[in-house]
Amino acid sequence: MAILPEPLEKLILAFERLPGIGPKTASRLAFYMLRAPVEVSADLSAALKDIKTATGLCQICFNITVAGHDICDICASRERDPHQICVVEEPMDVLAMERTAGFLGRYHVLHGALSPIEGIGPDNLRIAELEERVKAGDIKEIIVATNPSMEGDATALYLRQRLEAYPVHLTRLARGLPVGGDLEYADQNTLLRALAGRQDL
Amino acid sequence: MAILPEPLEKLILAFERLPGIGPKTASRLAFYMLRAPVEVSADLSAALKDIKTATGLCQICFNITVAGHDICDICASRERDPHQICVVEEPMDVLAMERTAGFLGRYHVLHGALSPIEGIGPDNLRIAELEERVKAGDIKEIIVATNPSMEGDATALYLRQRLEAYPVHLTRLARGLPVGGDLEYADQNTLLRALAGRQDL
Repeated sequence: MAILPEPLEKLILAFERLPGIGPKTASRLAFYMLRAPVEVSADLSAALKDIKTATGLCQICFNITVAGHDICDICASRERDPHQICVVEEPMDVLAMERTAGFLGRYHVLHGALSPIEGIGPDNLRIAELEERVKAGDIKEIIVATNPSMEGDATALYLRQRLEAYPVHLTRLARGLPVGGDLEYADQNTLLRALAGRQDL
Repeated sequence: MAILPEPLEKLILAFERLPGIGPKTASRLAFYMLRAPVEVSADLSAALKDIKTATGLCQICFNITVAGHDICDICASRERDPHQICVVEEPMDVLAMERTAGFLGRYHVLHGALSPIEGIGPDNLRIAELEERVKAGDIKEIIVATNPSMEGDATALYLRQRLEAYPVHLTRLARGLPVGGDLEYADQNTLLRALAGRQDL
């Protein structure tokens, strides 16, 4: 005799497959669905149903775009500077950059970072496509905005090597103390980088 | 110009409506769906689609049951003691009790606890139905397993008053449970000890 009815059991298992959701949270979410208005589960179900086919990748920058649109809104916009490209690891990073409202160029999404341990090499990322964009000319600056991690740093260094033959200016996001942070809580490496990169007051 | 394609935006909003999931987690889950195998989103979508209509309530104990089954597996089972009823607040609490494997009677799910602040009175809970079961006779012991919280205690006291005219023995789970805690988060051993040490109400 199963403890739970099958539809509920299935829902719990489906929730458990999401990142950061363990068995307890999965149960809680599933039972919540039974109590919540029908729209909560129906809307989520509908939004999930075709998410993979309803979206595609921009054929220029590889950011997420609506299916059927070969080029994303940012690449298509005339208001965005075509001479500046910000290189990020994931589509979520584009969102983070856009929220700052401080960057008016275009993007290039690598879809990952170099990681020999996980077997991710240059061919697994959209690096050849970036090189093509650079080769086509017209790009003056590439801002490498990969994560400040081992993999992100390795990817940045690799990009510098790979693109060094082209007349393009490569920059990297500044390292330093996070705004609103506390000096005493900063880790040694961050503090060291903040010191090395100190600016005129 | 929207930053995100509409299908993705919709998915993020649908995730945000779940309890304990904020905007950042909702974004992370939605972007994960784009990267994950199609089964992850498709299975969750299918499991959610009819969850409200695929399940119903047992007409005896009001636990969750498969739609079309008027009576749950536990109430239908001949192996479960019909003389003992464990009263819980929510269907998840039945699951927690069942996992201890220490209770062989049947259940009664109140679907909440008394809470004057939230406007939940006896008529909003399945208390009249519990009284009917008691009135029908044959029940020797009622184990009140409401949460060890203000509302759970109030509900237990109310049940004692309400059922005092009937020849039924009321007990309460032992105070091994941390006060202010939640039944669904209790570990199996604590719950087992609490069950074994139940006291007169």
